[in-house]
Amino acid sequence: MKTKKLINSGADAVDEMLEGVLAAHPEHLYAVEDMPRAIVAKNGPRNGKVGLVIGGGSGHEPTFLGYVGKGLADAAAIGNVFASPPPDPIVACAKAADGGAGVLFMYGNYAGDVMNFDMAAELLGLDDIEVRTVLTTDDVASAPPEQGNKRRGVAGNVFIFKAAGAACDLMYSLEDVERVARHANSRTYTMGVALSPCSLPQTLKPNFLIGEDEMEIGMGIHGEPGVARGPLRSADEVTDQLLDGILGEMGAAEAGDRVAVLVNSLGSTPMMELYIMMRRVKARLEDAGLLIHTSLVGNYCTSLEMAGASITVMHLDDELQELIDHPCDCAMFRK
Amino acid sequence: MKTKKLINSGADAVDEMLEGVLAAHPEHLYAVEDMPRAIVAKNGPRNGKVGLVIGGGSGHEPTFLGYVGKGLADAAAIGNVFASPPPDPIVACAKAADGGAGVLFMYGNYAGDVMNFDMAAELLGLDDIEVRTVLTTDDVASAPPEQGNKRRGVAGNVFIFKAAGAACDLMYSLEDVERVARHANSRTYTMGVALSPCSLPQTLKPNFLIGEDEMEIGMGIHGEPGVARGPLRSADEVTDQLLDGILGEMGAAEAGDRVAVLVNSLGSTPMMELYIMMRRVKARLEDAGLLIHTSLVGNYCTSLEMAGASITVMHLDDELQELIDHPCDCAMFRK
Repeated sequence: MKTKKLINSGADAVDEMLEGVLAAHPEHLYAVEDMPRAIVAKNGPRNGKVGLVIGGGSGHEPTFLGYVGKGLADAAAIGNVFASPPPDPIVACAKAADGGAGVLFMYGNYAGDVMNFDMAAELLGLDDIEVRTVLTTDDVASAPPEQGNKRRGVAGNVFIFKAAGAACDLMYSLEDVERVARHANSRTYTMGVALSPCSLPQTLKPNFLIGEDEMEIGMGIHGEPGVARGPLRSADEVTDQLLDGILGEMGAAEAGDRVAVLVNSLGSTPMMELYIMMRRVKARLEDAGLLIHTSLVGNYCTSLEMAGASITVMHLDDELQELIDHPCDCAMFRK
Repeated sequence: MKTKKLINSGADAVDEMLEGVLAAHPEHLYAVEDMPRAIVAKNGPRNGKVGLVIGGGSGHEPTFLGYVGKGLADAAAIGNVFASPPPDPIVACAKAADGGAGVLFMYGNYAGDVMNFDMAAELLGLDDIEVRTVLTTDDVASAPPEQGNKRRGVAGNVFIFKAAGAACDLMYSLEDVERVARHANSRTYTMGVALSPCSLPQTLKPNFLIGEDEMEIGMGIHGEPGVARGPLRSADEVTDQLLDGILGEMGAAEAGDRVAVLVNSLGSTPMMELYIMMRRVKARLEDAGLLIHTSLVGNYCTSLEMAGASITVMHLDDELQELIDHPCDCAMFRK
């Protein structure tokens, strides 16, 4: 059975999406000339500011292009569905984002992205643009703690990018933006659950198989295998399982500590279900003595039409709280 | 086959969702005491301002509760999934929204909602609160033009409520707010397409059946029958079919006229597909000589996890443009 999609052709889906994005958001976004996969914030880059370049595969919208705008990322390099962008649009993004104070690359820790962003950084070095890189690794289910550098970046990107983008907007130096970005990543924890697959526009076939009454805890946003598959349980039980994983990593949290929370749909899970989970998140965090400083609920990092959800907790401190509260103005996200 | 949902029980889903909404948005929303289905904007009602009360069945999130906030609706009465709220929470919303200048009820034109909101208006008359009512009827596929009063209200609600809420915030009189609301409704046109059903939390069964390669043009947001069922066509062809219906109603539009556009997901259709449609919307509207003044793309009026999309065009004039541009600050929508 083929998945039904409102597309014209699988091969054109990403480029046509980007044309639609520019059609919808002309006041916020433009594409670098002759480089339609390099999307830049009209209100972002400026002289003396560190440029923040994010990017990765398509299919996770509003990640990445929705987070391009003043106070957040200056540009995003866009790959094919679930595939890294090649070096060229990354280089173009960096040149557009560069304000003479260096450029920070931030993206999820996936091998293809690392290879292409690193190649872009080398090319930019030849042009005397200094590039630093911070990989996001917030998915606690993707590798054990002792292999933290193997973890993948998922929905926690929103908070981690936001903290770094605010630091750029506040004119931190490249060194300080890099420090803040690493710090934000180290205090951000995500765990997800998948209920049903998505399908790529090119194949229209499910990207994994799962039983009619099953869920998979810890599955990645491209369908990477998770840590446990079993019968679907109640929203409260699933939320508890995800939060147990997250809170287990937040060993240093003390009563009274503040957190930022994201309850994210992987695509087709409705807001009704996300808010039912949010209700339980609040109860559990309060039980742990933690204060919810801010929360987001909705479609922030999706996997096309996958069903399921993820919970992200960022363990705030004074600096991170200020950066998360800092205003931003993106086409698909405002604070 | 049962639909998998992250809920605790079908019977509790709406109330638990509302608890989660209040947990996530304490700075924006509260529930009237002992009336959890009456959700009020903390920053909304004020003395001398006309109160705007919206509402309807759950399952369309962020419609209705996402549009409660300063510059938009003052309160929303929340029904069960796809079912009207009873009079009690509507009365409670109106009392909370009342600033002494009267209250406007706005909601989609469905028999159950009309009955319950009318009963609430009668009860409020006993308390000397003046209530006017404007029904939204933007779904052009739901009845022929000569039976416009039988048409249903769907995603165009977002623009219509926004115009009326801005008029309230600008301290228009009740008579003027009512006039603006009717004018906004009369110039707002929506048409949708459904690809696959949703299921209610109580039943977990599909609310309609459709072939593996079929789409239904004009289906309502509760699965009401549409105007044509046939094989799924390309995004451009579907967009053209929807826009033909919409532009056919906008007979008075002249070259240079401005419009507001919404490309809305019915739930599980990803942003990628919406933006592919938006690309075609822009081309078609430009061909018709119309200028896109503003556009929204995303999940604005859903049917749980239904797959499909709708296109809304509001034909602006100077007054409507000012009202659509007016700032608003809601938990799930900011301008």
